[in-house]
Amino acid sequence: MHPADDERNIRELVQTWFSASQRGDIDTVLDLMTDDVVFMVPGQEPFGKAAFAQASAGMNAVQMQGSYDIRELQVMGDWAYLRNFIELTVTPPGGQAVHRAGYTLTVLRREADGRWRLCRDANLLAAAAPAT
Amino acid sequence: MHPADDERNIRELVQTWFSASQRGDIDTVLDLMTDDVVFMVPGQEPFGKAAFAQASAGMNAVQMQGSYDIRELQVMGDWAYLRNFIELTVTPPGGQAVHRAGYTLTVLRREADGRWRLCRDANLLAAAAPAT
Repeated sequence: MHPADDERNIRELVQTWFSASQRGDIDTVLDLMTDDVVFMVPGQEPFGKAAFAQASAGMNAVQMQGSYDIRELQVMGDWAYLRNFIELTVTPPGGQAVHRAGYTLTVLRREADGRWRLCRDANLLAAAAPAT
Repeated sequence: MHPADDERNIRELVQTWFSASQRGDIDTVLDLMTDDVVFMVPGQEPFGKAAFAQASAGMNAVQMQGSYDIRELQVMGDWAYLRNFIELTVTPPGGQAVHRAGYTLTVLRREADGRWRLCRDANLLAAAAPAT
């Protein structure tokens, strides 16, 4: 496959992840990660796909809106990494909106079926001043 | 080069980085990163080699002790990533020791001179309860 196709496929993956997350379509998101995925966030042990699914199920009633801006995308054969800047506003039912912003460093892998999937993710998002 | 050599070289890089940092040998540390390195930490804009050098120079009198445990190392050609667990105790002169612990996700690249260098680093270390 041409590297430009890989880049386009990975950008589509990020867009699909983001829009599926916003509408609470967990199954679609789970299909965009490898089975051995590892998520890393500050102040917490790394967690995998099952814990991600469980946490997402608990977020069912939570409204999420945001945007992202891919700052760097590097493809090297069947592997890639990307750096993303993400802004999110998360609103629990009847609760206060929380604004979070920050960067991610993500490793992706092309699997045997030819599809790119997220396999390692370090999420540095921190609580931020509310958007004005 | 045999993949086992790459792994050993990368583990040596991490060990050299760690011991050079502890003794304040900034030049050695700077030589272990690419010129286009990007460091990412929570709640801050990503920064590069010049900012790292400047911050390190300001840490000259700070005592740093700690340990690390490489949890995963994956080599793919001239690229690699690793996940590390780091514990640090940082003591400013005449000040209170601060204990920090957490994970990093790091991307490394083999450069034209054949040497592996750190090129992207997401550092999720957070303040932790003091070691007892």
